Amino acid sequence: MIASPAFAVVDWGTSSFRLWLVSEDGAVLAERQSGDGMTTAREKGFAATLDAHLESLDAPAGLPVVACGMVGARQGWMEANYLDVPASLEEIVSKAVSPRDTDRRVFILPGLAQRLKARADVIRGEETQLMGAAASRPNAGAGLYCMPGTHSKWVRMESGKVAGFSTFMTGELFALIVHHSILAHSIGEAEADPEAPAFAEAVLAAYQEPQCLTGSLFSIRGSQLLFGDTPERAAARLSGMLIGTEIAGSGCKSGGESIHLIASGRLASLYRAAFAALSIGIEEIDADQAVREGLIRAARFLGLIGGKGQFS
Amino acid sequence: MIASPAFAVVDWGTSSFRLWLVSEDGAVLAERQSGDGMTTAREKGFAATLDAHLESLDAPAGLPVVACGMVGARQGWMEANYLDVPASLEEIVSKAVSPRDTDRRVFILPGLAQRLKARADVIRGEETQLMGAAASRPNAGAGLYCMPGTHSKWVRMESGKVAGFSTFMTGELFALIVHHSILAHSIGEAEADPEAPAFAEAVLAAYQEPQCLTGSLFSIRGSQLLFGDTPERAAARLSGMLIGTEIAGSGCKSGGESIHLIASGRLASLYRAAFAALSIGIEEIDADQAVREGLIRAARFLGLIGGKGQFS
Repeated sequence: MIASPAFAVVDWGTSSFRLWLVSEDGAVLAERQSGDGMTTAREKGFAATLDAHLESLDAPAGLPVVACGMVGARQGWMEANYLDVPASLEEIVSKAVSPRDTDRRVFILPGLAQRLKARADVIRGEETQLMGAAASRPNAGAGLYCMPGTHSKWVRMESGKVAGFSTFMTGELFALIVHHSILAHSIGEAEADPEAPAFAEAVLAAYQEPQCLTGSLFSIRGSQLLFGDTPERAAARLSGMLIGTEIAGSGCKSGGESIHLIASGRLASLYRAAFAALSIGIEEIDADQAVREGLIRAARFLGLIGGKGQFS
Repeated sequence: MIASPAFAVVDWGTSSFRLWLVSEDGAVLAERQSGDGMTTAREKGFAATLDAHLESLDAPAGLPVVACGMVGARQGWMEANYLDVPASLEEIVSKAVSPRDTDRRVFILPGLAQRLKARADVIRGEETQLMGAAASRPNAGAGLYCMPGTHSKWVRMESGKVAGFSTFMTGELFALIVHHSILAHSIGEAEADPEAPAFAEAVLAAYQEPQCLTGSLFSIRGSQLLFGDTPERAAARLSGMLIGTEIAGSGCKSGGESIHLIASGRLASLYRAAFAALSIGIEEIDADQAVREGLIRAARFLGLIGGKGQFS
């Protein structure tokens, strides 16, 4: 006998949509990924997009859904206002909003805000991923988490709550420089190889002298003109400079506490190599699994899963 | 009796063209500015572009010309290969090249190269400006020069030679971030006001913690979302962050040697305010006058001006 889904969870970002059907006992029964992120769904309609994906998995009619990410932004389906840090998953879940243009029970989780003047910051989606990663760890997951991406998030967890965080525009700066700056000529279509010595060297140099970032970038052009550096070497250096600067800015140190790295695929390889170059210990956590766990925990608090949920 | 020009000098950059007619005794007789930089001149033809501008000033036929800048790049009129640092103006002039597709005597000055592995760097045009600025100073202009721009150049002069330099992509990064990043929404068309307190605060914070640049940028977005920061404040903060990081990367210190700031107009205002916020002493030098002086000195070495030039 095949278990039937009790609810669905969705990680709904700007350009990505990932959905899982989950059974009464928290087991994942089916999965679906697509490019129907917030941007696309704004045109197709959020309710229609969600319905279509659920139907394609033969989900039962009226299956409840818990979602996190940009779907809750002002430009998303329905705005779920930022909750201030420090915040626990229970507190996040208690502020979930439910859109009214659907008969389905849909819960959209809010993101978090850090209202500090010089460090004003927001997070939307990663907080749920983080809660999934932290839940099963000792000491309620206390520690420092690195979540690389277009906008890398570094998050401090304390006492089961998100205590504070910083956003680094590492991935976006890499893309801007590769596509639009004078360094586009030096890099072309090349990708950074995490195994390249030039990558590790650039990480180390940037970490040791992070004040030199804007002054080091142009040496990529200089090295092409004067030493005939290849596009591959240029890409590795640029990536290393930006990631090394990010790690320096995070304040973490070699020989200090180990970092929880929540990442997948290519980004996991690059950051793993960067931390190794700096002799900073890491513990890796799979990003996809983490967000699914966080959403399923949220569903439990919402009472969508077996036993008594705190909010059922 | 009106003096007649003995030669012309041209500061010929990527997107700008500035020409001066100069008399036998080094006096400027006429000036012309246009957007016929290297990019435009590649299409119109370099010789034709130069001829047209000289004719519009009624310059005598066959007037010799000394030019510096991107006109000597590989994509320019004729490549003038980079000369290695340390280099003096005499050495730069001795490597001038003369294009053969014109009957006019034209001398294109080379740029400079710094062949250091991690600090490979090139400069083309600013070296001539610098030589103009340094010439009339005590101790042959020894000291540290800041030349802000799309690619800011920081140059160390010693014993009448360019000893070394660093390029900071400050202006280009500002434009990339304003036009293409997520911060475009926060800044729009606003310009940075050098008098804004937010500018000085951002300069100081970036100078003190330059490792935080990539982690501070996103606080511009956060401050808009959480505190309703205006586009004007956002622009001032972005500019301050980038300029403060540049000054930190240059290694200059408050209470240390004073910096020679070679700049004009808006950039001069911004950098003047930034140095003031950091209590770093500066001596200002007008950028337009400096490049003209450098080119006229070069013409003297080439024997185009009264008396015996070293290379006449």
